[in-house]
Amino acid sequence: MFKLRLLLTALALSSSLSAMALEPLPTTAPAPADNPTTPEKVELGKLLYHDPRLSSSGTVACASCHNTSLGGEDNRPNSVGINGQTGGRSAPTVWNAAFNAVQFWDGRAASLEEQAAGPVTNPIEMGMKSWDDVVARLKTIKGYQVAFAKAFGDDNAITKANATKAIAAYERTLITPNSAYDKFVAGNKAALTVQQQHGLEKIQALGCTGCHSGPAFNGPGGFQKFPVFSNGYFEAQYHISKDLGRAEVTKNDNDKHLWKVPTLRNVAITAPYFHNGSVKTLDAAVKLMAKLQLNQDLSDADTADIVAFLNALTGEFPHQTLPSLPATPGSTFN
Amino acid sequence: MFKLRLLLTALALSSSLSAMALEPLPTTAPAPADNPTTPEKVELGKLLYHDPRLSSSGTVACASCHNTSLGGEDNRPNSVGINGQTGGRSAPTVWNAAFNAVQFWDGRAASLEEQAAGPVTNPIEMGMKSWDDVVARLKTIKGYQVAFAKAFGDDNAITKANATKAIAAYERTLITPNSAYDKFVAGNKAALTVQQQHGLEKIQALGCTGCHSGPAFNGPGGFQKFPVFSNGYFEAQYHISKDLGRAEVTKNDNDKHLWKVPTLRNVAITAPYFHNGSVKTLDAAVKLMAKLQLNQDLSDADTADIVAFLNALTGEFPHQTLPSLPATPGSTFN
Repeated sequence: MFKLRLLLTALALSSSLSAMALEPLPTTAPAPADNPTTPEKVELGKLLYHDPRLSSSGTVACASCHNTSLGGEDNRPNSVGINGQTGGRSAPTVWNAAFNAVQFWDGRAASLEEQAAGPVTNPIEMGMKSWDDVVARLKTIKGYQVAFAKAFGDDNAITKANATKAIAAYERTLITPNSAYDKFVAGNKAALTVQQQHGLEKIQALGCTGCHSGPAFNGPGGFQKFPVFSNGYFEAQYHISKDLGRAEVTKNDNDKHLWKVPTLRNVAITAPYFHNGSVKTLDAAVKLMAKLQLNQDLSDADTADIVAFLNALTGEFPHQTLPSLPATPGSTFN
Repeated sequence: MFKLRLLLTALALSSSLSAMALEPLPTTAPAPADNPTTPEKVELGKLLYHDPRLSSSGTVACASCHNTSLGGEDNRPNSVGINGQTGGRSAPTVWNAAFNAVQFWDGRAASLEEQAAGPVTNPIEMGMKSWDDVVARLKTIKGYQVAFAKAFGDDNAITKANATKAIAAYERTLITPNSAYDKFVAGNKAALTVQQQHGLEKIQALGCTGCHSGPAFNGPGGFQKFPVFSNGYFEAQYHISKDLGRAEVTKNDNDKHLWKVPTLRNVAITAPYFHNGSVKTLDAAVKLMAKLQLNQDLSDADTADIVAFLNALTGEFPHQTLPSLPATPGSTFN
């Protein structure tokens, strides 16, 4: 009898959900016209992405903070760059970043190519004085001369533009398909538990999917305000409003507290949460979002259902070989 | 005629070399009786080795300084631990470390297991307060509970002893066979160029292989004095004698300036050189060793031959999959 009720609930849920646009994560990411994805670029980009020699000290790679082995980020509220320096924002996951309409929390890069250029010369991240210095260093490494020539078909191919194109091409392969949710959407209704199906229904009913929409649950693009509903207590507890978000870039008051909508894909394994990593657990993050964005006080039971569903967004991480970085001639670092 | 002379030279060299004990690198490493190598331990050890959550800040893994992608070390004179701190010694390569008779530059660990325990709680390296803290943290990560149980067949298997055993088991798989030298030793006389064969002959004639002996060119075990011949100029230039080596551990004057003989395997790709990483190029390192250990002033031509040979000791790095680290529940780091 109990089983039957469960089944009926499941059927009712599937039926109500089937009317909505539930989309699986695409297994390939679109590339810009001037940077079609090729295996050679992906292979080169993978090397560059994991190479700490792209930092002034030789200790910080893209992968140090956006760790492909660890949910695509570093599990820290903020990241640690050269000389132990920390910034004010939490590293977003690189997995499925190809599906973001803009990059960085404040959306200051329009593409993965543009994003890749930033941290390398940021003085508290990778600390290179200029991309000319990066290019000069890469040119001393024979293996990179070969890999750039292969990827870009030119003996003089080591340039900033090509390096960032290669990194972006690699990042476009960092996709985590086949989550329980994707299997459910593809027709396997048993892929989500009844609790997860409840959670899915609730994030739609509450309005979470108003912004966290689409296959990557990161909206159709553009920015959203956070918080929508002021709350002195929570804003103080989590220092949420200290950072002006997009307005820090545009210096436009209308952009205050606007943020890129982050993907919910793999959210269960990418704590801590929010632009400043101030919230340590997914339960707390879900409750806070409901309160600050939708003015809802979520019950523990509703929170548990939603968290159960969010766990169904953890995808399959494709097998990659550990990169074998081309050798340095002598030593670059002091 | 020129070709004939080259051929005759090559034949003469092979003939003179064939009388000596040239040994290929073993493709497996011996394991201690209480830690037989198993696939489950190797897999777990690979995770732990690449996991920055074994450091207090979540930013430094074993692989940060002993980078499996980058010749097994970090190409720096000294390594960078938590909070940007640096030590006084250069990270030795992890590749083929299984063939060292002792571990650390000063040989203070008798085994890979013992070595693995050190950096994790070193305050300037990975900075954990104690292994109890490491164990407590690992126990919060469900994937580690599973992986330790698989490797050690016990539900309560997360211990310091098992963690270091697993790391050591993984490190025993980090072997780089099939260098040009190994192919030469196996009978393919064309695997070494004539210049490389000259280099091989010279390191034997000069006496380099007195200490750098055996298949890994790291001696039969024990320690050697460095420098053997005092030289105020070079000792000052490279700060070579400031660090007392083994005596820093034993506090015994007889151990002053005794060091573990490092492997020459992959030496061409693991600059900078010596315990303090003070020498940036292989040419300079070869000349300095000849001067300080053998009281020989090497000509540029002899140096070039030896460097050519040392390049033949770069092996094949086996393909490994990029580790997929088990997810953190919530966030551990502040």
